[in-house]
Amino acid sequence: MPIYYDDLAIGDTTRVGPISIDESSIIEFAQSYDPQPFHVDPEAARTSMFGELVASGLHTLCLSVRLFVTEFVDGSGGLDNMGGIGMDNLRWHEPVRPGDELFLDIEVIGLRPSQSRSDRGYVDFERTVSTADGTTVLSFVSHNVVGRDPSRESD
Amino acid sequence: MPIYYDDLAIGDTTRVGPISIDESSIIEFAQSYDPQPFHVDPEAARTSMFGELVASGLHTLCLSVRLFVTEFVDGSGGLDNMGGIGMDNLRWHEPVRPGDELFLDIEVIGLRPSQSRSDRGYVDFERTVSTADGTTVLSFVSHNVVGRDPSRESD
Repeated sequence: MPIYYDDLAIGDTTRVGPISIDESSIIEFAQSYDPQPFHVDPEAARTSMFGELVASGLHTLCLSVRLFVTEFVDGSGGLDNMGGIGMDNLRWHEPVRPGDELFLDIEVIGLRPSQSRSDRGYVDFERTVSTADGTTVLSFVSHNVVGRDPSRESD
Repeated sequence: MPIYYDDLAIGDTTRVGPISIDESSIIEFAQSYDPQPFHVDPEAARTSMFGELVASGLHTLCLSVRLFVTEFVDGSGGLDNMGGIGMDNLRWHEPVRPGDELFLDIEVIGLRPSQSRSDRGYVDFERTVSTADGTTVLSFVSHNVVGRDPSRESD
């Protein structure tokens, strides 16, 4: 059985991960989507604001979505996610460096049934990405559409 | 000369792009970062909320950052971007489909000099991603750190 909107409650938390990140994947991602010197060139990164090569914040975001999808949504026992609407309050708190391992904490902070479509509800998740030593590197709120339990009592 | 914080004014706008997206790149991106059926499996996508294969919203975001970096930041005449702080009000308005071409409109909506570091300022950009027919598919506000003109009169 999937996890439906009706199975969620405000304050529910889940931790997934870790996923690791290395220098070659940092450079490869950034060459495709964020080719700035401090993400693709270890030498040039030394004179940047960061002082060393750091991951694109977009890369950290993408890895956190991969964790969300593969470890929380995916599979017959996972969240019945129908799609994403948006994100708010996204902040990159600290740089992510080669060798870091990333964990994702997911908390349900908002639940609103759809008024117009009885098969879905809107869920707000606070998502927090941390390294193994507990440093928060990224946090944001996502707004998702989640399927409702077709067998529930009508309301 | 790069474009410094001091060269920007509220209301400045720039359009960059287009960049195109096809089915194989949609599937390849999603397999790495957002492997949900409606992004990786054209058959399964037919019974999804979208009714057909659509790009991961994260993919659209990544392509828009690529445009921002390669056509607005990059090069000696581009924005002296020192890094990103975060994003707000990110909304995926409409799905992006194979064959779409994406344009990015960038508007300066906020400027605050750093109080503690004279070499930088904080800039808010409204970024809007549209397809060739003018449909807005993604919009968000980014918060960036931008270098100040070292030759400016001190203030």
